Amino acid sequence: MNLTNYTSIDSYLETHMDESIAELSRLVAQPSVGAQNLGMQECAALVAGMLRQRGFATEVMPTAGAPVVFGERKGIGNQTLLFYCHYDVQPPEPLELWETPPFEPSLRDGKLFGRGVGDDKGHLVARLFAVDALLSTLGDLPCTVKFIIEGEEETSSVHLHEYVRNNLERLKADGCIWEFGGVDHTETPVQYLGLRGICYVELSVETSSTDVHSGLGGSIFPNAAWRLVWALNSLKGPDEHICLPGFYNKVRKPSGRDIELMDALPETADFYKELYGVKSFIKGLTGGVELRVEEVFTPTCTICGLTSGYQGPGGKTVQPAKASAKVDFRLVPDQEPAEVVEQLRRHLDANGFSDVKVEQLGGEPPARTDPDDPFVKLVCDTAVEVYGVPMRILPMGGGSGPNAPFIHDLGLPVATAGLGHPDGRGHAPNENIRLDLYLKHAKHMARLMAEFGK
Amino acid sequence: MNLTNYTSIDSYLETHMDESIAELSRLVAQPSVGAQNLGMQECAALVAGMLRQRGFATEVMPTAGAPVVFGERKGIGNQTLLFYCHYDVQPPEPLELWETPPFEPSLRDGKLFGRGVGDDKGHLVARLFAVDALLSTLGDLPCTVKFIIEGEEETSSVHLHEYVRNNLERLKADGCIWEFGGVDHTETPVQYLGLRGICYVELSVETSSTDVHSGLGGSIFPNAAWRLVWALNSLKGPDEHICLPGFYNKVRKPSGRDIELMDALPETADFYKELYGVKSFIKGLTGGVELRVEEVFTPTCTICGLTSGYQGPGGKTVQPAKASAKVDFRLVPDQEPAEVVEQLRRHLDANGFSDVKVEQLGGEPPARTDPDDPFVKLVCDTAVEVYGVPMRILPMGGGSGPNAPFIHDLGLPVATAGLGHPDGRGHAPNENIRLDLYLKHAKHMARLMAEFGK
Repeated sequence: MNLTNYTSIDSYLETHMDESIAELSRLVAQPSVGAQNLGMQECAALVAGMLRQRGFATEVMPTAGAPVVFGERKGIGNQTLLFYCHYDVQPPEPLELWETPPFEPSLRDGKLFGRGVGDDKGHLVARLFAVDALLSTLGDLPCTVKFIIEGEEETSSVHLHEYVRNNLERLKADGCIWEFGGVDHTETPVQYLGLRGICYVELSVETSSTDVHSGLGGSIFPNAAWRLVWALNSLKGPDEHICLPGFYNKVRKPSGRDIELMDALPETADFYKELYGVKSFIKGLTGGVELRVEEVFTPTCTICGLTSGYQGPGGKTVQPAKASAKVDFRLVPDQEPAEVVEQLRRHLDANGFSDVKVEQLGGEPPARTDPDDPFVKLVCDTAVEVYGVPMRILPMGGGSGPNAPFIHDLGLPVATAGLGHPDGRGHAPNENIRLDLYLKHAKHMARLMAEFGK
Repeated sequence: MNLTNYTSIDSYLETHMDESIAELSRLVAQPSVGAQNLGMQECAALVAGMLRQRGFATEVMPTAGAPVVFGERKGIGNQTLLFYCHYDVQPPEPLELWETPPFEPSLRDGKLFGRGVGDDKGHLVARLFAVDALLSTLGDLPCTVKFIIEGEEETSSVHLHEYVRNNLERLKADGCIWEFGGVDHTETPVQYLGLRGICYVELSVETSSTDVHSGLGGSIFPNAAWRLVWALNSLKGPDEHICLPGFYNKVRKPSGRDIELMDALPETADFYKELYGVKSFIKGLTGGVELRVEEVFTPTCTICGLTSGYQGPGGKTVQPAKASAKVDFRLVPDQEPAEVVEQLRRHLDANGFSDVKVEQLGGEPPARTDPDDPFVKLVCDTAVEVYGVPMRILPMGGGSGPNAPFIHDLGLPVATAGLGHPDGRGHAPNENIRLDLYLKHAKHMARLMAEFGK
């Protein structure tokens, strides 16, 4: 099988867009909110059907949480390409900020809107679309293709690491394409060569068995909301320094090569300010390579949610019995989630907050891929014809994901390619993908499979 | 009209309890949640009808907020007694903690459960029950009786002060019975001779135009939840000292007489611990007169609610665009709510929190009545036969209410009497009244009206 050009494949993709977007819309319309255990089995079955109808040997494999969908189709060449995707999505709340309902996919202005349309269902369906184009044009796949599609990515992939360790032979491959990717604000596709780790916890405190009238409780009883505020304040102050003893001990500073790669990237400051309605950055940063390095090479401590007492309109004079906060720590090599949980517990105890409980809701270590790996080069090379510009190399991404088992346990080079764009609103209301980028991603993946098989 | 004993009145009350509780249940079944603007007009109309059917000249008088219901019925004597009540109730949330629905009154274990059953609808209906007993037994009222029943007590009585100032002649009286009262944990009725003031505010901050993926926003954008936590922490630390400059300047310490009265009160520490499931008190307090003085003579700063970002089950990796807190300050003489709002704004600006908005949701100054006023003595004297023990005199109560216009503008002595009990769950789920105390309050009020008319 030798392709000298991709005219017929591109033509197939361009003329079958409507069918592929219809298939994606059906998948998005099936809610699969892992955090709320909503529609998970149904979505896994739907995904498995999509693989089977393309001739993939498919299994829906149970884990202690949501099932993993695995599919494999042999190809002509000896190489095996593994796609890692996920079928779970973030909760759609706050619902009132969606212009169209999150689980009723809506096409407008060249975009498809819906929860999970970009993260990550669009990636899965665009890759299947590329498979369709190869099968239709060549009658076979140029290389063996495997899909691992998990259902716990948005809840920190709690059971994926164990699944990978138990299925090393099944997942064996020569290269892995990550679940996400896309263009930056200059329309240039970006290659992320690492992901930060994450340690996601819930802090909670309970000070009484019932809410109390604030005219009494506020005077003499401990207040759960105040306890939480003070405990949080002890973790990080306005200087953004994270106060857990030992937290920074294992942080590797970016190398000279890292800084060089970061320096080659375009300016982001004004773009971010406009896109997110942000007036300034933290730590006095104003832009340049310093801002970009801060974005990915520094560990963070982020409050993702606060809840306590009365939250409705107007006032209610009550002292809350309970308060809780969702907090995520993003970690950089060589930090470890389990160590951060220990540091947090010790810090709270040492600062008088033994009453504040810590529950770990998820954790993943950070991991990086060598930018000089030939597989990474192939992913970049096959993108050029589609996007018209070379991929930008980011030595590290700011997000997190379970790349550690793929890099460390399976020994795979992990490269990124995807259909994302900066205004895609991942994890937020009005999540969307651009149809032009959907098509480009399918073209890119068809080329990668074809060239990988040679 | 001379009553030498109350046998026939008590007999009327004892034999008509079912009808009165049925009337109260109809009133409780009509939601009237001021903070949510739910059922206010309907409830005002219902209350007005209850006055009219007893021969009160009744008006539903508009304000800029919820209407005030005013009723007057002339009596034989020259004295005029003014009852201050309110028909609005606290929001019923959290609904899942109610054993029976908040607006479906439920009788069990000698108690009536429902939102507003004690605060304050039970007081209103028990007082009308006393009116019924007098009219049935004597054919007329011994003194002129006026009711002012407002609809904004739970939202800080924003328009009541203006209403009182505009209706001084209409409201003219010789004594005023406050909306609430009751027995303490030793079953002794309590006379509260003052109320703390309140300044209720919402603090809010917005750092971006949309929620942002925490893998990006958490690294370089200001976080609304962190901004709120740090701003709150600047108001008060674990030592409970309120840090607004000037906040304590106008605080009058309790007098020797105040301490004497507080010292005569029973111990509360173990009772509170058991009732509210509290392990310890703040400021290292363990009980005694120190705890009781702290409960009412010290100004407070209480977080009543916190809200930001994701609050559902599991985790969501998002940096919130917005965060807000409900905060109430309880004030003691001679603090003023408007001054506290100014101090708060200045403090936030001075500490780098100009981005934190302050919205005042309510405010009332503190006010106290002279414990040596003859009206106060009459209220206490008429209670003895009913309760079997002398009333306990509290020189100050911990709660708040709009007593300032009655004490300062109308020049009235304001005394308390009521049907409350310590496990009445005011402002909380499973609010309830005890039927035995309901009957006692009606008996007490019938005696007060009779003796006041002599």
